[in-house]
Amino acid sequence: MRYLTETDIEALAIGAAILGTGGGGNPYIGKLRCLQELRRGNPVGLLALDELADDAFVMPIGGIGAPIVGIEKLEEGDEGLRALRALEAYCGRKIDALISAEIGGGNALEPIITAAAAGIPVVDGDGMGRAFPEMQMTTFSIYGHRSTPAALADERGNVVLFQHAVSEGWFERLARSAVVTMGGTAIGAEAPMAGSYVKRAAVPNTVTQAIRLGEVVLRANATHTDPIPLICAAEQGVHLMDAKIVELKRHLQGGFAVGEIALEGIDGHAGGRALVQFQNEFLTFERDGRVEVSVPDLIVILDVDSGRAITTEVLRYGQRVAVLALPCHPLLRTAEALAVVGPQAFGLDGVTFRPLARRQA
Amino acid sequence: MRYLTETDIEALAIGAAILGTGGGGNPYIGKLRCLQELRRGNPVGLLALDELADDAFVMPIGGIGAPIVGIEKLEEGDEGLRALRALEAYCGRKIDALISAEIGGGNALEPIITAAAAGIPVVDGDGMGRAFPEMQMTTFSIYGHRSTPAALADERGNVVLFQHAVSEGWFERLARSAVVTMGGTAIGAEAPMAGSYVKRAAVPNTVTQAIRLGEVVLRANATHTDPIPLICAAEQGVHLMDAKIVELKRHLQGGFAVGEIALEGIDGHAGGRALVQFQNEFLTFERDGRVEVSVPDLIVILDVDSGRAITTEVLRYGQRVAVLALPCHPLLRTAEALAVVGPQAFGLDGVTFRPLARRQA
Repeated sequence: MRYLTETDIEALAIGAAILGTGGGGNPYIGKLRCLQELRRGNPVGLLALDELADDAFVMPIGGIGAPIVGIEKLEEGDEGLRALRALEAYCGRKIDALISAEIGGGNALEPIITAAAAGIPVVDGDGMGRAFPEMQMTTFSIYGHRSTPAALADERGNVVLFQHAVSEGWFERLARSAVVTMGGTAIGAEAPMAGSYVKRAAVPNTVTQAIRLGEVVLRANATHTDPIPLICAAEQGVHLMDAKIVELKRHLQGGFAVGEIALEGIDGHAGGRALVQFQNEFLTFERDGRVEVSVPDLIVILDVDSGRAITTEVLRYGQRVAVLALPCHPLLRTAEALAVVGPQAFGLDGVTFRPLARRQA
Repeated sequence: MRYLTETDIEALAIGAAILGTGGGGNPYIGKLRCLQELRRGNPVGLLALDELADDAFVMPIGGIGAPIVGIEKLEEGDEGLRALRALEAYCGRKIDALISAEIGGGNALEPIITAAAAGIPVVDGDGMGRAFPEMQMTTFSIYGHRSTPAALADERGNVVLFQHAVSEGWFERLARSAVVTMGGTAIGAEAPMAGSYVKRAAVPNTVTQAIRLGEVVLRANATHTDPIPLICAAEQGVHLMDAKIVELKRHLQGGFAVGEIALEGIDGHAGGRALVQFQNEFLTFERDGRVEVSVPDLIVILDVDSGRAITTEVLRYGQRVAVLALPCHPLLRTAEALAVVGPQAFGLDGVTFRPLARRQA
């Protein structure tokens, strides 16, 4: 186990935003709160999967809601700890370690904030290897773990325990409506898992992956190098186009930021046009009437110069962006996974998932 | 303690519907389920308030949601028992007795169904002395009891525990949105109370009151007597008018049946016109531009011939009805109570509550 440093946190926020594919919440405030915890002398250990005891009690945690709400409605600070304590009391057992439900966006940082307060480590892995909009869309759920009992805590002090949901879909529905009532965002902690299950079902090493990715961007920025090819190389991805946002439809629907972006190619891609649909995260990249990339592969929109991710809530007309596609982890490409996170799970009936090949740099 | 008989249940369903002032859920199905329990040999004791031990652990229980949904979406049967068991497990203590959160409508019968299954008695009293649409509108809440931890169970098997709400209003908001997600109705059990508190805060003897009221109606029906003056006499109420429903606006809004009825006088009241507003329950009776009766006093709409209550979900154009006003219990007329169940609590800003005098028969 190694302890996370301030430099790690800076890089993690950048890398996690890229893996967020537009969602997962804006990592900026989460980063500040992690740094504050470290500076207060609350270190957080990062536990590799193979260091995890088989009988460890590992709890997934993360923010739930619309990212666009999350940038205005700030957390009070102890939401995660209240959710953790509620589940510990309910289960009658102490939680040994936390794991990110999704590594993408601000949810990479949520477990670290709560882990610092609780004095326990975080596991190097997560339940998505990216961000997804709904709670049943984790590899934990996909490979058989039931999310209930789960706890939801808001910034006022309300705590709701989902004692038993008859399915993962019902858990998502019940938790989502509670989040909407709480004002659009809340912190959720799901049923703890055995270490042995986490080793099998978690997307591995994604905290380290996000930190490395952030370091690539920071290094490129410091040396005035174009970060886009370096990001593609690090993640074995494809640079789809450089473009200007020429149209943006975005609205809040059932607690989600839903919409689409029209893109017009610039520089080497002049004349090209493309369309990106999103539900918190980017779902499809369509060019010349053909969906070239779709969930669960990652569609990433970056500032064309800095290589920093642009999340759905800060997209705006006229932005100059680079659009990349990164292959998702094999755990998201099985038949079980595609039933939950493939295009059909998002109501995209005409879209067939064509796995992106991993490009060697 | 005496045991409830089948005759009691028949009368209770009729009396409770009258005290429901249009809401509280249709008692018909609940009555059938109570009778079934008694016929299965599951007797239910009715415990007078002065028989209750001061340290008894007494749990309020009732259906939550829009009555109009409740007549189509049937209960599975064990919702109440699941909610009871969830709270017992959470509190680490067995529940000694149940009490109706509201005596009005079907919620007079819900505690009896669960009590029969659990083998415990029900208390002769309730938290409203009538029906009200929202969960913080009980004398239990008004006089200082906090409703959380509370449990909500649906017919599928989902159980949500509201571990802690920062206020009774937040509990109502969170529970209501869960009920809407569950499909519009669910069974809710609130934090157990000490017997000593129940003796002080419950509206007393309302199960017996509803049974007596039902007996009055049954006797009038059997002897072909006009039940309306007998009901007024039994409840010290006022016969406001006989009328025909000439207009009906009713819609489902945030889990409530909301709307208004226009009435045109018939028989001795020909030429008169009146307006009744409702949110699950009847809120105001307005005649000649003046609100004559308002919450928390009871506005009751009965079939003009049979004296049976007409609940908001079965109101229809052309119905011939008798409109009565019954004085509410003094526990609902204090300043603390009026802040929660007076006209202003329903957004009726221009309406001043003028307590109805109790008429001696």
